[in-house]
Amino acid sequence: MNIPDSSNPRVVIIGGGFGGLSIAKQLKNRNFQVVLLDKHNYHNFQPLMYQVATGGLEAGTIAYPIRKVVQEHKETFFRMANVEKVDTFGKKVISDIGTIYYDYLVIATGSTNNYFGNKDIEKNSMVMKTIPEALDIRSLILENFELALQTNDEKVRRSLMNFVIVGAGPTGVELAGALAEMKKAVLPKDYPDLDLSMMEINLVQGTNRVLDAMSEKSSKAAAKYLKNLGVSIHLDVRVTNYDGNVVTTAGDLEFHSQAVIWSAGVKGAAVDGVNDAVDRASRIRVNDFNQVEGFEDVFAIGDVAAMYGEKFKFGHPMMAQPAIQQGELLAENLERLSKKQSLKKFVYNDKGSMATIGRNKAVVDLPKLHFNGVFAWFVWMFIHLISLIGFKNRMLVFWSWVYNYFVFDRESRIIVRPYRKKKGIEHGN
Amino acid sequence: MNIPDSSNPRVVIIGGGFGGLSIAKQLKNRNFQVVLLDKHNYHNFQPLMYQVATGGLEAGTIAYPIRKVVQEHKETFFRMANVEKVDTFGKKVISDIGTIYYDYLVIATGSTNNYFGNKDIEKNSMVMKTIPEALDIRSLILENFELALQTNDEKVRRSLMNFVIVGAGPTGVELAGALAEMKKAVLPKDYPDLDLSMMEINLVQGTNRVLDAMSEKSSKAAAKYLKNLGVSIHLDVRVTNYDGNVVTTAGDLEFHSQAVIWSAGVKGAAVDGVNDAVDRASRIRVNDFNQVEGFEDVFAIGDVAAMYGEKFKFGHPMMAQPAIQQGELLAENLERLSKKQSLKKFVYNDKGSMATIGRNKAVVDLPKLHFNGVFAWFVWMFIHLISLIGFKNRMLVFWSWVYNYFVFDRESRIIVRPYRKKKGIEHGN
Repeated sequence: MNIPDSSNPRVVIIGGGFGGLSIAKQLKNRNFQVVLLDKHNYHNFQPLMYQVATGGLEAGTIAYPIRKVVQEHKETFFRMANVEKVDTFGKKVISDIGTIYYDYLVIATGSTNNYFGNKDIEKNSMVMKTIPEALDIRSLILENFELALQTNDEKVRRSLMNFVIVGAGPTGVELAGALAEMKKAVLPKDYPDLDLSMMEINLVQGTNRVLDAMSEKSSKAAAKYLKNLGVSIHLDVRVTNYDGNVVTTAGDLEFHSQAVIWSAGVKGAAVDGVNDAVDRASRIRVNDFNQVEGFEDVFAIGDVAAMYGEKFKFGHPMMAQPAIQQGELLAENLERLSKKQSLKKFVYNDKGSMATIGRNKAVVDLPKLHFNGVFAWFVWMFIHLISLIGFKNRMLVFWSWVYNYFVFDRESRIIVRPYRKKKGIEHGN
Repeated sequence: MNIPDSSNPRVVIIGGGFGGLSIAKQLKNRNFQVVLLDKHNYHNFQPLMYQVATGGLEAGTIAYPIRKVVQEHKETFFRMANVEKVDTFGKKVISDIGTIYYDYLVIATGSTNNYFGNKDIEKNSMVMKTIPEALDIRSLILENFELALQTNDEKVRRSLMNFVIVGAGPTGVELAGALAEMKKAVLPKDYPDLDLSMMEINLVQGTNRVLDAMSEKSSKAAAKYLKNLGVSIHLDVRVTNYDGNVVTTAGDLEFHSQAVIWSAGVKGAAVDGVNDAVDRASRIRVNDFNQVEGFEDVFAIGDVAAMYGEKFKFGHPMMAQPAIQQGELLAENLERLSKKQSLKKFVYNDKGSMATIGRNKAVVDLPKLHFNGVFAWFVWMFIHLISLIGFKNRMLVFWSWVYNYFVFDRESRIIVRPYRKKKGIEHGN
């Protein structure tokens, strides 16, 4: 890989998500050469992905070119690369664009979908971790309605309009809410010749409440909002398989569906090469300084890092905040390390969590306060707007929201790249 | 195909471009049942496609859901379908979603790329007729720069950064201008470790001037603007082949390039089934009422229609205006036809044409006035903004332009779906 030589020690960061960008920014004026690697040339703002999937936002408004983030960093070099493995013995990263040596390695590879080993579900269901995946879901939703119009088989039609979302964490809840709003305000106008009462939104959760990482109060409020919007919630139901037609569960319940979205689990996206430190959730065990177990010069931050502690038995929640905070501290610690100073322990500052269900409906958990409703919804929007990178994206998202709010519409309902082959769906005539 | 019965005669329109939407809108309250077919579920605003390709605009801001356009038309039914052929004997359209009978057929299938039979060029060069194609060009441009960073072979690097645009009509000129602006304002900041003086933009034209359908004054002004921006213009040069590495021409000139964009020609996208009326440019010959030669009940409008006349020997220019005007008149004529009244002849109202080269640089030809410069550029922007469908798209495009203007940036430079396999490009290390 072509990276200029430097008199400064080189930090290689794998991943341009919240964690990777956070440390890259903090390393700017700290006498390191920084090499930032990512599969994509952009950072994406995961929390708003579901709005891309449901046509409320354009993909580009939640993506931001990584090169632009590090444009003014003289000693930072971005390369688009797929990392194959790390060689901690030779202190190098092996990727599809060549080998790169490091002095310090920061693994910030985030998380990936967890199908718990079920290949059928992996093959047949949709997920929403990347922008192309969100666009695929958007295409699938719209293609399903086009197909529903064409078939004469009522069973097939119902199956095309039966959305099953597995997993009622923030992603599942927000997606279910957005689909329910489409059903109410957008789809009847678009498909006047389709009986939209046939459309079902089933939200399936393995535990006994939605948003089970949030407060009981927020869970209850979210469930109530969802029910009012027409979402069917199935609690304590464990999905066992999906063959492309039928979702089966551990009980009697089953769903005939051509649109299953899997948001039931994530796991760490650990890289090959630090395998001894990888735990059962594919996260990399780190100490309080984010040092990977057994190493002095290899670090992991964010979703992929498992910092076991008293409060967080299996590591911090896999969200933006721990990643950002770990990235910030690690930049400082790398400087300390290079100066042979003692390192600072990471302490997570929990700023709370929130989820939105629909217009005027959100739930917010602050450390000492839980609230929901219109005000929560405004708080949710405000926090997400200011968290977006880039003035232009903020502006475009803001205007899209204002428009969608007043016009009750989701105009990005365009199928740019069709997703599904029209497999096995009978044609009408 | 499932279309409800109606007591009104049925008009089937193939194509939701400028022509198809124009007639569909005009037929709203005229006692017809309208069935509108398109391969895509959106209308796209072709004139701004080059800004999507160069990262200035989001794809969705120039696309608009067709269902939304016809939402309030009670007797209009949109279906997403690929038409295989028309059977004028049986008065039916055969598509991948079934057969549909018509009383009147309107072919508004537009145009497609014309490679003049050269399979190598078709296989190896990029085109920009659809949104996915524009996004592919965007990906290719950005992937080329990422690859250029990685190679140690200067010849390969130059070839990756050598953009060859074949055809200096509005599309070619606007794309060349946008690339030149990226070279000046965006790329040096994104790729500080790349020598951007190696980047070339070659605009190749078979005739003796750029924009040869416009006035000589506009041609000259455009050529001057392009040269000032650093575009190399090659006039009277006919490209003979492109094998994926080298562009060869009828003369000695050749270009080593990994990025060839073909905008040298379009032809009609005639449907199968009216073959006797198809001319050498694959357009369908129509009379002054847009009736296809030999038929009373089959019509063609827009790019695909060739209405030979004194002023337009081989039909009208393949642009939005003739399509829109023909669509409007044909709606009226269909009503007249159904009432057995005489039909009105089409007379093209030439409103002029324009092209933009870069910030503050555009050329405008009105019927009796040619002007260029800053004012022309504002006229160009204003006309394009008001021509976009939908308030939201207008708003988002407007704000994107304001932002791009003041910040000298093109932030949509994200590779959503990578285009090129890293074929044959050496890795650096």
